[in-house]
Amino acid sequence: MFKKIADSTLERLSKYIRALEFFIKNNKTSISSEDLADQGAITSAQVRKDLSFFGTFGKRGIGYNTSELHKTISNVLGLDKNWNLAIVGAGNIGKSLINFNEFRSRGFIIRGVFDSDPKKIGLDVNGFTIHKMDDFTQRIKHLNIHIGIIAVTPEHAQNVADLMISSGITAILNFAPKNIKVPEGIIVRNTNITVNLEKITFHLNQNS
Amino acid sequence: MFKKIADSTLERLSKYIRALEFFIKNNKTSISSEDLADQGAITSAQVRKDLSFFGTFGKRGIGYNTSELHKTISNVLGLDKNWNLAIVGAGNIGKSLINFNEFRSRGFIIRGVFDSDPKKIGLDVNGFTIHKMDDFTQRIKHLNIHIGIIAVTPEHAQNVADLMISSGITAILNFAPKNIKVPEGIIVRNTNITVNLEKITFHLNQNS
Repeated sequence: MFKKIADSTLERLSKYIRALEFFIKNNKTSISSEDLADQGAITSAQVRKDLSFFGTFGKRGIGYNTSELHKTISNVLGLDKNWNLAIVGAGNIGKSLINFNEFRSRGFIIRGVFDSDPKKIGLDVNGFTIHKMDDFTQRIKHLNIHIGIIAVTPEHAQNVADLMISSGITAILNFAPKNIKVPEGIIVRNTNITVNLEKITFHLNQNS
Repeated sequence: MFKKIADSTLERLSKYIRALEFFIKNNKTSISSEDLADQGAITSAQVRKDLSFFGTFGKRGIGYNTSELHKTISNVLGLDKNWNLAIVGAGNIGKSLINFNEFRSRGFIIRGVFDSDPKKIGLDVNGFTIHKMDDFTQRIKHLNIHIGIIAVTPEHAQNVADLMISSGITAILNFAPKNIKVPEGIIVRNTNITVNLEKITFHLNQNS
């Protein structure tokens, strides 16, 4: 359908979803492209362009119906389905992901948590038992995992990615501060908390 | 100096820093633009373009000196300095940031943690006492905070941002899934774990 969509567009769609949820919560049934633009530091022309690409057009003088638009964007982003996650690494990041309530409310369901540290295996984190890595491939087969989450130290990130892929996982979200290499056809996104701080310090540094 | 640098360029610089750390750890004193490109799923032409913009040129047949290049990029990103952080919100995200060891190793020093929940105030998290929000402005004044981190629920994000700015903070990293509005001159970056998952589900959804 829309294969060639830039990450920057997808990020805006995520912003629209959140803005729409806010408007719906506040009982607004229709909004203008300006209302949406205002929420995301985007121009209203950009909003109209983005939405028309998905076949959604505001009505002159009325704007967009909030719940219809929410439904359309949810559908485009696949947020009208549940997605099963497996987390490898039960350290700081892994644990905070396990405890992150927003996941479940958005249809991201943690189905398995794994770690290689013998001291952690068998422990319970927020209702999840930490399993050993040796069981990864076999457990994954029964869990219908859509997305593997890497939350290990940088030196182990690539090995974990390789194991996920050989176990049949086709999409990976990597939290390790190390770029991982994957074969063509595997979806991967890297996310790094410190990188966002570095964008800020660059600008602070310029100003000082 | 380099005011007009896109976030995408800054993200690549962060990638180079991490790749260089990996090479330095493995005792490589010089690397090619291909080596760097290989680490970040970038073309070597892009690497050379990025680095030449900062006045750094590889030597033909030798490449780039890893520690010199690390020093140059650290300097550009402001990573050769320490930066003081104040975290507002001691929930899941706030706590995991407090426990996130990579911060300190990169010069990001948590100087204060704040929450509005009376049950949390006075508690110790990894050596940090959680302070009440009423004391925010006064405490901040003595702490020389460079960056405020918002780790509260979406409905409180804007209020916290306003308080940070009125307390003299000029740079904000926002973890709340809500876009915040700031006056001109204030640096803000939004970071959202779920947005990265939504980029993945978009593609999974297209493939299914």
